Amino acid sequence: MSHPPADRHGPESPPALIGLDWGTSSLRACLFDGLGGVVARRSRPWGIQHLPDGGYAAAFRGVVGDWRDHWPDAPVLAAGMVGSRTGWHEVPYVACPADATTIAAGIVPFTSECGLVHLVPGVVQDAPFPDVMRGEEAQIIGALAHDPSLAARSLIVLPGTHCKWARVEDGRVTRFTTYLTGELFAVLRDHSVLGRPSRDAGDGTDSSRAAAFRRGVETARQSGAAGVAGKLFTTRSLVLCGGLAAADALDYLSGLLIGEELRSALATHGDPAPAGVLVGDAALCGRYRTACAAFGLTGIRVLDDTGPLGLWRIALAARLVPAPPATASGQPRA
Amino acid sequence: MSHPPADRHGPESPPALIGLDWGTSSLRACLFDGLGGVVARRSRPWGIQHLPDGGYAAAFRGVVGDWRDHWPDAPVLAAGMVGSRTGWHEVPYVACPADATTIAAGIVPFTSECGLVHLVPGVVQDAPFPDVMRGEEAQIIGALAHDPSLAARSLIVLPGTHCKWARVEDGRVTRFTTYLTGELFAVLRDHSVLGRPSRDAGDGTDSSRAAAFRRGVETARQSGAAGVAGKLFTTRSLVLCGGLAAADALDYLSGLLIGEELRSALATHGDPAPAGVLVGDAALCGRYRTACAAFGLTGIRVLDDTGPLGLWRIALAARLVPAPPATASGQPRA
Repeated sequence: MSHPPADRHGPESPPALIGLDWGTSSLRACLFDGLGGVVARRSRPWGIQHLPDGGYAAAFRGVVGDWRDHWPDAPVLAAGMVGSRTGWHEVPYVACPADATTIAAGIVPFTSECGLVHLVPGVVQDAPFPDVMRGEEAQIIGALAHDPSLAARSLIVLPGTHCKWARVEDGRVTRFTTYLTGELFAVLRDHSVLGRPSRDAGDGTDSSRAAAFRRGVETARQSGAAGVAGKLFTTRSLVLCGGLAAADALDYLSGLLIGEELRSALATHGDPAPAGVLVGDAALCGRYRTACAAFGLTGIRVLDDTGPLGLWRIALAARLVPAPPATASGQPRA
Repeated sequence: MSHPPADRHGPESPPALIGLDWGTSSLRACLFDGLGGVVARRSRPWGIQHLPDGGYAAAFRGVVGDWRDHWPDAPVLAAGMVGSRTGWHEVPYVACPADATTIAAGIVPFTSECGLVHLVPGVVQDAPFPDVMRGEEAQIIGALAHDPSLAARSLIVLPGTHCKWARVEDGRVTRFTTYLTGELFAVLRDHSVLGRPSRDAGDGTDSSRAAAFRRGVETARQSGAAGVAGKLFTTRSLVLCGGLAAADALDYLSGLLIGEELRSALATHGDPAPAGVLVGDAALCGRYRTACAAFGLTGIRVLDDTGPLGLWRIALAARLVPAPPATASGQPRA
């Protein structure tokens, strides 16, 4: 290749790191300058369960092959399910309590067909109720870097297919719980009797859907200690009895499930305010924030796109990239 | 047809009723004598979502066509999803409180391609949390006929795809709740990350599976007011961390879900003893009874196969069959 990639960084500061967030359903890449700034981004639908022909190597070359060719000295750091047992190369988990330093110490250098790739370990919480994360640890480290006030004591919630509720104390993840909410919604929508009316009816209006969502959240909240086990079927019976439009039923179900997650988590963790924060996709975090408000939790902030900063911080802790120069105030920039 | 069907009843008492329990996944038929005794049974996998070529008429002829030809005077009474909106012919629900008399009053005679079929209505519970049943009402009426001590006040639990908890007072179903437990288990087993290890590993031993089931129930019980929302993922994380054999994971999940149903129902209904009874498939009811014992509910009885007696009682209330002669003690036999 005779020319650098079109989205190349300016020549005055050669890229210092290629970061990958490689999960189950997508593959996202960032190119960092020497101060941790993101100078280019790419995304492909090549999660580890949706690899292109040619597998991991083809996906890697497809998304960052030209970056690697042009800047062979920039290390590659990859977080997420790519390091799982079914991933490109398995990386053992590091245990709670975990921070950027312990995570960096667990990085595994892996010599792939595409050269050296540094794989970030996931985090494991031990018995009696073990739990695991892979990829979210980078988002958490990024959130703590973005807002250092969270480090002392906070509850970081990462909505998604498998929503994580992570307790941070003294800058370390001390424990966490996975809620299956996103996957539960998807399987009920696609495969159960609850999703059938909506599959036929299409979507309702924005306002009727928002109202159905709030109604589901409120039903979960009012279920008290019983929870929603005996309310899930109302997603169908309300439609049969004319009390809910089929086109709004999935939003009601979403409200029931997110509401149940909040109800259950509050019974476990107590009130997360004032140091509760939602991290992740803005639209989904917006749903969670609406649900939080129904539970009387206001002022919950949303942080989006903290993964790249987390990868950079982990790379710094692992000395894969040079420490940034001190600023005039004596504080490093990133 | 020149000969009566091979499973025909003796000529001394011509059949009085053909009863059908026609649900989502199966079609069961009973032939009754004039005293309500079952003299022949048949079953086909032709639920309304699994009809043979030729649809309802072909299924009907396939299972009871010869009975109808030989005993054209015997009425046909059918309960279950066959009377739903997506069934052979829709039958409006009757409202709670419901008993054999109000259910019989809601029967709809339907002139099908195969002649007259009397369709049993389902039962509806009104707002704010409407609920519906179709088919279970016949099992409940049968359970009350089988054990009249349940009529005054009892809680009748019918495990299945959509488990029903029905409160009976003064011989009438006064309210009920549907738990999605069976369907939830099936969609998580077949379509979620929780079922994947077991799909690959096959089944464990009987004793390891039973222990995993009890462990799941106990986890649900100990979850207290939080419920199992934050514990479902342990079905996977325990396997990943070596704390649960993949081959036993589905039994653990079954225990979690049935345990959550019990936890939630007890928070709603209170202690169902002493008048709690399980009605339905013996193996599934056995799981529920094991779970009940973990919650300290002992002495819960199991009644199987109450549907035919329920159909007969509904047919009597509808005067589709003649009232039985009084016995020497003045009590009718059935």
